[in-house]
Amino acid sequence: MGKESGKGFVVWFTGLPASGKSTLAESTARALREAGRRVEVLDGDEVRTHLCKGLGFTREGRDTNIRRIGFVAHLLARNGIVAIAAAISPYRAIRDENRALIGDFVEVFVECPLEECKRRDPKGLYKKALAGELPQFTGVSDPYEPPLMPEVVVRTAVETVEQSTARILGAIRAKGYVG
Amino acid sequence: MGKESGKGFVVWFTGLPASGKSTLAESTARALREAGRRVEVLDGDEVRTHLCKGLGFTREGRDTNIRRIGFVAHLLARNGIVAIAAAISPYRAIRDENRALIGDFVEVFVECPLEECKRRDPKGLYKKALAGELPQFTGVSDPYEPPLMPEVVVRTAVETVEQSTARILGAIRAKGYVG
Repeated sequence: MGKESGKGFVVWFTGLPASGKSTLAESTARALREAGRRVEVLDGDEVRTHLCKGLGFTREGRDTNIRRIGFVAHLLARNGIVAIAAAISPYRAIRDENRALIGDFVEVFVECPLEECKRRDPKGLYKKALAGELPQFTGVSDPYEPPLMPEVVVRTAVETVEQSTARILGAIRAKGYVG
Repeated sequence: MGKESGKGFVVWFTGLPASGKSTLAESTARALREAGRRVEVLDGDEVRTHLCKGLGFTREGRDTNIRRIGFVAHLLARNGIVAIAAAISPYRAIRDENRALIGDFVEVFVECPLEECKRRDPKGLYKKALAGELPQFTGVSDPYEPPLMPEVVVRTAVETVEQSTARILGAIRAKGYVG
């Protein structure tokens, strides 16, 4: 199983709701598995269910959620696994805290104009937020702080999934994590 | 790195406070690393800090803590890592829930008479509990439910660490997880 060996690292997807994080996390996971790596995708919503039940969407609740994803990603990465996190993770300080903890960290800013995210709205959440039914919804009633120096920015309104995935893999290769 | 490959599994240490769980978790981890496996030790106290801050020691708080350790152990094991959990985990139902989730599960009952645990009391917690200062302390003011069919029982009042570790490794081998 020599193909499966290698250094663990974390790919962290951040961006507005409906910007395309989960889609790109999955396409990136698929490509890395094809390259022989063990990959675990930590999806913000799923992790909330298992590790953060009861935490709200206040600043403190969000920070705790993102720190926990970071801790689990850290445990996986230091055991040689590629951990891929897909979570809005709106606050820069906590993302940077995770970067410092983990070390081997590839931050992907999934950039998509708010208008396009609202148009997509696969879960109907923007609609609810705009109607005032979700008091703390990122991009509408809660802030989003874009990364200042992410390893890669993908623009999902103008790139295909294949193009974005290729650019993400390029950034991972540039850091020497895969051949 | 062929030596590092292999199927992931979980070794779950349960027992009273001061029964010897952490010591045996570490000695087992050392032996498995020497056998070429990747091993992560999830210690109950450490996990509480990172994943369960603010959870109390009520039945519900404890159950959530143990479920979270189980979830993280599950993520590690399904990626080929040996996850070793050392946590009082007093309630049988939640340990069995984790066993069902994880599948590849070796339960180690660290058996030690309460009187001997009280005598050891490395953190002085029994003393506090007996003085009425810790209202929910397992073994004194909170219940402990021993496993009915653990893979192995070690008796730390009468066995050396080496003897107990050898028996734990025997149980792991008997399940075919290491050669």
